Order: sequence, then C-alpha cells, then structure tokens
Amino acid sequence: MMSNKFFKSMVIFNVKNISSRSYTNLPDFTKNTFNVERGFYNYFQEPHLRFFQNLLGNERVVTDLFDLERHNVDWFLQLRGSSDVVLKPKTTEEVSKILEFCNGNKLAVCPQGGNTGASGGSVPVFDEIIISMEMMNEIINIDEDSGTVTCQSGVILESLDKAVAEKGFVVPLDLGAKGSCHIGGNVATNAGGMRLIRYGNLHGNILGLEVVKANGEVLNLLKPMKKDNTGFHLKNLFIGSEGTLGIITKVILQCPPRPRSQHVAFLGLQKYDKVLKTFKKARSDLGEILSAVEVMDHATIEFAHEYVQTVSPIGDYPFYLLIETSGSSDEHDEHKVHAFVESALNQHFVLNGTVASDHTKVRGLWELREKVPVGFKKCGWVGLFDVSLPIKHYYTMVDETRSFLKNRVDSVFGFGHLGDGNLHLNAVSKKYDETLKTSLEKFVAVKTTEFGGSVSAEHGVGFLKRRYLPMANSPGAFHLMTDVKKLLDPNRILNPYKIFP
Amino acid sequence: MMSNKFFKSMVIFNVKNISSRSYTNLPDFTKNTFNVERGFYNYFQEPHLRFFQNLLGNERVVTDLFDLERHNVDWFLQLRGSSDVVLKPKTTEEVSKILEFCNGNKLAVCPQGGNTGASGGSVPVFDEIIISMEMMNEIINIDEDSGTVTCQSGVILESLDKAVAEKGFVVPLDLGAKGSCHIGGNVATNAGGMRLIRYGNLHGNILGLEVVKANGEVLNLLKPMKKDNTGFHLKNLFIGSEGTLGIITKVILQCPPRPRSQHVAFLGLQKYDKVLKTFKKARSDLGEILSAVEVMDHATIEFAHEYVQTVSPIGDYPFYLLIETSGSSDEHDEHKVHAFVESALNQHFVLNGTVASDHTKVRGLWELREKVPVGFKKCGWVGLFDVSLPIKHYYTMVDETRSFLKNRVDSVFGFGHLGDGNLHLNAVSKKYDETLKTSLEKFVAVKTTEFGGSVSAEHGVGFLKRRYLPMANSPGAFHLMTDVKKLLDPNRILNPYKIFP
Repeated sequence: MMSNKFFKSMVIFNVKNISSRSYTNLPDFTKNTFNVERGFYNYFQEPHLRFFQNLLGNERVVTDLFDLERHNVDWFLQLRGSSDVVLKPKTTEEVSKILEFCNGNKLAVCPQGGNTGASGGSVPVFDEIIISMEMMNEIINIDEDSGTVTCQSGVILESLDKAVAEKGFVVPLDLGAKGSCHIGGNVATNAGGMRLIRYGNLHGNILGLEVVKANGEVLNLLKPMKKDNTGFHLKNLFIGSEGTLGIITKVILQCPPRPRSQHVAFLGLQKYDKVLKTFKKARSDLGEILSAVEVMDHATIEFAHEYVQTVSPIGDYPFYLLIETSGSSDEHDEHKVHAFVESALNQHFVLNGTVASDHTKVRGLWELREKVPVGFKKCGWVGLFDVSLPIKHYYTMVDETRSFLKNRVDSVFGFGHLGDGNLHLNAVSKKYDETLKTSLEKFVAVKTTEFGGSVSAEHGVGFLKRRYLPMANSPGAFHLMTDVKKLLDPNRILNPYKIFP
Repeated sequence: MMSNKFFKSMVIFNVKNISSRSYTNLPDFTKNTFNVERGFYNYFQEPHLRFFQNLLGNERVVTDLFDLERHNVDWFLQLRGSSDVVLKPKTTEEVSKILEFCNGNKLAVCPQGGNTGASGGSVPVFDEIIISMEMMNEIINIDEDSGTVTCQSGVILESLDKAVAEKGFVVPLDLGAKGSCHIGGNVATNAGGMRLIRYGNLHGNILGLEVVKANGEVLNLLKPMKKDNTGFHLKNLFIGSEGTLGIITKVILQCPPRPRSQHVAFLGLQKYDKVLKTFKKARSDLGEILSAVEVMDHATIEFAHEYVQTVSPIGDYPFYLLIETSGSSDEHDEHKVHAFVESALNQHFVLNGTVASDHTKVRGLWELREKVPVGFKKCGWVGLFDVSLPIKHYYTMVDETRSFLKNRVDSVFGFGHLGDGNLHLNAVSKKYDETLKTSLEKFVAVKTTEFGGSVSAEHGVGFLKRRYLPMANSPGAFHLMTDVKKLLDPNRILNPYKIFP
C-alpha cells in the first residue's frame, strides 16, 4: 500500500535528481512515524567501520550523510530509515564476509537492489546496515543455445533485457520500474508485471540462484537446467522471500525467443461483464500470441487526463481494455488481432476500438496505462492497493470501495493486469485524513480476504503490509514461515521488521 | 535409473493385468537385493490395524496379500516392498488422522499416487504403511473465467485433462503415464514431460496446494491467485519433495486455453550440429506455437523397429527430430510449419521431412517416439538414464557412453526432450552383467556432473538415485535439505529411504 501521509502535499521529489542534491519533502523517519520497536541488535560503531573499510576499501563504504539519503528513503517517499552506512560489495565473497561479520556481531542488515519496492522492503527501518547490490552488475554468460542468462543480482532489468535482445531473446519479465530495478530484487520480491500472462512467473523462469545465508555461508543453487529433480527445490524458497532468508548474489534465468511482431488493441466497453467476455474471447481467439490484458475504468482515464495529460484516442467509455499480442509473424498476428476486434464489435462485447502495429503508436497506447502511476506524485493523497482477486469479483471490489468511501475522497478508480486478476485500486483526495486512511486499509484487506483474494498481488509484504501476514495466510502456513525464518536466520539479522509483524 | 537385474530376463508383467491375478517375474524383495537397513520404526500390529479399520472401515484397509502386490511392486518391476497394509483415505481429514497416528506410533509410511514413478519413490522399501491416494479423486471446481482447476490429489492426469477440455482448457503437463499417474504424484515429483517447452514447469503452473504434514497438521496453501506475494512461497517446497515432507491432498492448477490446431514435422538429419541448428531455427521461426521438440538417434529408431515394430516414414537418417506446434489458427500454423521445414531443407539443416496435420497422422508420428519405452519390457537388460545436459553436450554424452561401453552391450541410444536438454540415454543387452551395470551407472553420473548437467532430469531421486544426492547438490544445499527434512518430519516417518542416502 502506498497510502501514506507523506502524499498529503504535492511531492516533487524525483529519484533521478537525488545526485543533484535537491531533496524536497523527504518523509519523517520511519522510527518516529510508525509504532515499531528497535530489535536487540548492536549499534554500528568505529571498529565495524574499520572492518568494512579493510574489506571493501573506503570508496565502497558510504557514510556521507547526503549520499546515504537515497538509500535510506524509498522511491515512493513513504519511509525513511536512519542507517549510518551503505556497503557496496562487488563479489559474492565480499557479501559472504559482510554477513559473517554482521551475524557474529549481531548487526542487522537491509539488502537493497534498485530500491523501487512499493511496500517498503528495501529501506532500513532503524539503523540497519544497508548492503547495496548496485556494483554487483556483471552479466556473466548468455547461452545462445538455450537462451539462459547467468548474471550477478545487481544487474538492472532493462540492461539485462538489452543484453539478451542482442542474442534474440527477451527477459520474461517487464515492469514499469525496469530502468532502475535489479533482477535480484525482482527475484527477492517475486516481481510479476505486465507479461506474466504470457511467460509465467519467476518460479517457472528462474533456473538457478546463488544465495548468501545470514551466517555468511554461500549457498550454491546455480543449476542451469530446465529440468532438474535432484532433491528439494530450495531456490524457490528464496524467490519472494524479500531479503529475509538470504541475499541473492547470482541468478540464472531462462529467456524465450524475442517476439518479432507486436500489436496493441485499445477497446472501449460499456460494462464489466463485457470486459470479462472480451477477456475470455481474447484468451481463446488470440491464444498463444496474447501477451498482456490491462483494464482501466473511466475514472482512471479521467485521473490520468488531469495529472499526466493523456487522452483516450477512442473517446469516453465506462471501461477500457488494452490487449497486446507478441508473436513470430507480423502478418498472422495482425490478421488475428483484427479478426478478434471485428468479432468482438459484432458480438457487441466492445463499443469502439483501435489497433496499433507500428512501434510509436504501440508505445502511445501503452502510455495511457503506464503513465497512470506518475499522477500519484501530483494528486495530493493517494491510497493505493495492489490486490489480486478472482476475476469475477475484480471490479466488484472497486464498486464496493466506492460505496464505502462515498464522497469522502475525490475519486476511486481501478486498473491493472486483468489477465492475472491483479487490481491496482486507488482512492485519491486533495485532503489527507488519517482516520479515513486507516479504515480504508482495513476495509480493503477484509474485503479482499472475503473475496478469496490476496492483499499483496505483486508488491510483496515488505514493511508496510507486515501486519496482514497472519490474515493472508493460514495459521499453519504462518507458523511454518516462522520456523523457516528461524532455520535460516536464527539471529534475525536479515531485513528485520519486514514480512513478519 | 531403470537399470536393474530384473530386466535380465524377458518381462511380460503388465500392470493392467494385475487384477487378473497373473503375476509373472516379480522382482525379489528390495530389502534382500539392496544394501539398505530398516530404520527404527515400529512394526505394524493388530492394534494399529484396528485403529485404521475404525477410521476407514474394513474395505479401505487392504491386507489381502494379492491385493497388496500391485502397491508393493513398482511399475518398472525394479523393486518390491513388503508392506502388510494399504490405506485408502477419501478425505484430507482421514489422511490427517492417519499421519497423526503413525507419527505418534513411529510407524513409517509410503505415500503412493499412480505408482508410475521411475526411481522407486512410490513403493515401500521395507514394511512402510502404504497410503494410496487413489480414492481421493474428486475434481472440486473448474473456474471457467481463469482456467484454474481445484481437485484432490488422486485424480488421474488424463481424467483431469478431459475434464478441463470440456471447458476449453488444457492441463499444461503431458506424460506417457497420463492414463495412470495422479496429479498429486506429478506435483510431488515435479513431473516434466513433453510440453514443458511450451507451458513451463509445475513450479510456474501450480497455484495452490493442501498438504498434510508428518504430524497430521493440515497445511492450507490453497490460494487460487496467479499473483500472490504474501510471505514465503511454501507450496514450492512440496513440489518435487517426493512425499518426504508431507502428503499432498489438494491441488490448484492453472490451465491455458486448449489449442485448436496441432501439426507435427518429422525430420531426418545428418549430424548433431544440424540438429542443434534446426532446433534453434524452430524456436525462432515457430516461436509461440512450438510445443514439443523431441530428438531420436538412428539406434533409437532401430531399437523401436525391432521391439515395437515402428517404421520411420522418411527412411534412414543418423538423427530424427519430431517438432510439434499447437496454436489457435490451423491456417497460420500450417503455413508457419511448412515455411519452416522448407527453409530448413533449403539451408541443408535437414535432409528429408514430412508434416502431419490430421489427428491420425499426428498420432502416428508421435508413436514413433512414445512407443520406444514399451520396448524396454521386451529387450532383455536395459540401463536407462534420465539426465539433463547443456544442449551443446547433449549428444556428446551418448557418443562417450558408446565409447565407454564399446561392444559390451548390444546397443547404446539416446532420445528425449531436446527442448529442455532432457536426454533419455539407454544401453541394452540380452545379457545382464552386474559389474558392467555398476560401472556404467558411475560413468554416467560422473560424466553428467562434469558436463554441468543433472543426474535426474524429471524422474526424481526416489530410492534408486538417493546415493547421488550429495553429488548432485552443493554441500550447503544438501545440508539445508537435511535441515528442512528435520523441520517438517522430525521422526522421519514420511517415505523413508527415499531422496536421502
């Protein structure tokens, strides 16, 4: 959830400007604004600093207050840690030595990738030592026969995609944050994104991992095989563990062939039941070339128009669908997409639509969807929820939230990855109201659970959703998570205050 | 590995005939033929029997010696347990009560699905109580919006596929054993099969599980969402755990839309480097419609001709490729397949080929590949290995095995799922030679590891490959597996003598 009082005023902070020393509107320290108690960890002191400087050299041990800031504050400006030091290892061995030392000295650590997380998992809560993976950015090998890539975990997602593109492959994961987020952070949070409907999730696409355990032990799970059944599948335990079970240092990922053609249909619809029918029709008619199904309601398009000046190219409708195909034959795909849209129009599922094939127009249609979150930094207060739901209840959730809030906010709107049941539900208001925020959060969590959905679809638990962990899991599952944490990190030095309430 | 002395004589046992009381050539008891010691478990006695009869009724507690046999002996006739009882629960609660009782009384159990496993994981080694899941075969729900199916774990794979086919979906898993194997057994062994190249593995396709832990606790991991990041992804720990961490009682699986068209190209090639080139070309040209890439060498076709009377429809070549496409447009797919084959011929990658589109011809081509294993029951002794390898070393493995064995066997041949690097490597001989078998097993394990491959691609570790577990995993991974086992099954009652050496 992004809902947070720091959004009550216009926020002009831009993460790319940090290096120009132009901070404005930084949030207050998390330790002051949240009801959370520091664990019994040791404090970072001079002898620790000397150890790290000996290990990494002075340049890769950051203590300058200004330089620390971008590591202490999260991208959404919701949280602010008070760490005194950022370590920047370049090798697995360095990560291992850091953790062995921290574990021995009961020093808490916060592993950090691109720091683009939406649930506050990537910044310290108190003074945890930040281990930034940004210098572990080597692409080690791309196997052109199988399309598997082996790299260090600090490689930026977009860079990884560019590298495999040169060999004719595509990274089977696409996120709005791709220009900043790390593949290691993606794995640690089991990132989902736009293309999950096509390529599946990371549990299916990650072949191998190297992980450093809390005690510094290097766990080699680096098997590059698509099929390997030799014992428990341990790597999956670390996918989505949000830095609480180990630090991912290397990743082996399988990449499918890069599609040669892309088409986008942008459709206007009258009612949610037509949205559902059109989605099912797309799944059936477009089958294997379907690569994204995004839905937006009218209020989303209105919001985007107001704050990021995008305009629907097909006029006003209660619902919009953006349907993307990616395939190996431009001619075939174009034929399929046009036949699909024509038939959906004839069946009165869809009221209006446009299809784009050339790159610029495709990008233009995608911007209608992708630019929506940019508006969140301009609109005042926003309560943002990332839930997943059985798709028959998908839009009921938006309607019910609207009824619940009535005129207490300026707008309630929903958009998201319909193909995966993943709804981004938002309430925006120029005024901030703490009581409203609290009751809205509770309402969404309870309703989502009632519908049999998940309170965190793709953003993870992090710091902000930790109190929902017991509600989101059966008692047995919650208990087993606690046991697994104890087994792998008995001193609880890894990313404390995250995931667990 | 199937290599085993029970193949030294002609085997005419057929699992389907078991109920007609016509056993022949049963293997000797595993406890007599393998160097393995019984654990410190209690023996099954009268009071235990009474407890189970009270719980399940007399009919679902099998003690008749003949009826026990098909549960004690594995499908490949390699192993024979000496269990005195088979329990047939119908509900999760019954499984829970059984395990709670067994755990409290230190009685070892062997969970059993369709008993089609190739590594001996599904039959008892000594007198473990067999828990057969065959009566837990209810399909609970098929969600037509999302294509997810929820069922008990004892549903036969083929039945599940038929049920979802009626709603327009396909189970994303296809195995030779589909007529007998259970979905729960597939999950427990992380089964791979023919279509993995298209639909990905079970870690990507299983959405939720219900598992009963060793102490009888029911672990509810039944989340039906495609995106759900609320804590550790525990279900993945049970996928591929071969019944040693818990008994899977329910499964939620996502199913893609059923393809409308299918085409198969059967190609003859001169050399393995052309096989590789053709595979890469198929991946690129056929892209999203590619659904299987199977390779066979000349010796495989010769073997199949001798024992199952199949005939290559395109004459003799050193290598054959079977390439299947599945898609949503018959016309488009046919065009793509023909263009691909024509171009592969023009580029001299391929020497000859045929394409089938109608169902009967497609089946006929598939039989050339699928019938090969049927020959294993007729040929005398066979050393069968299921390994995965980086595909550049894929066929080197066959060549090196041939050089290693020279004329000590009648034939060495290789076939398998090239798309996944999964090689089924075989050595057959009319004569059985224990020394040769032992040295061959060692040779294959060492070579596979040298090539960076896996000694068990899809068949799992089970009983027969347990001594390779430490070789197949890093010391840290092996150690963590032991810790996880201790955490979930401290009394080691679940499928003992399996996976761990």
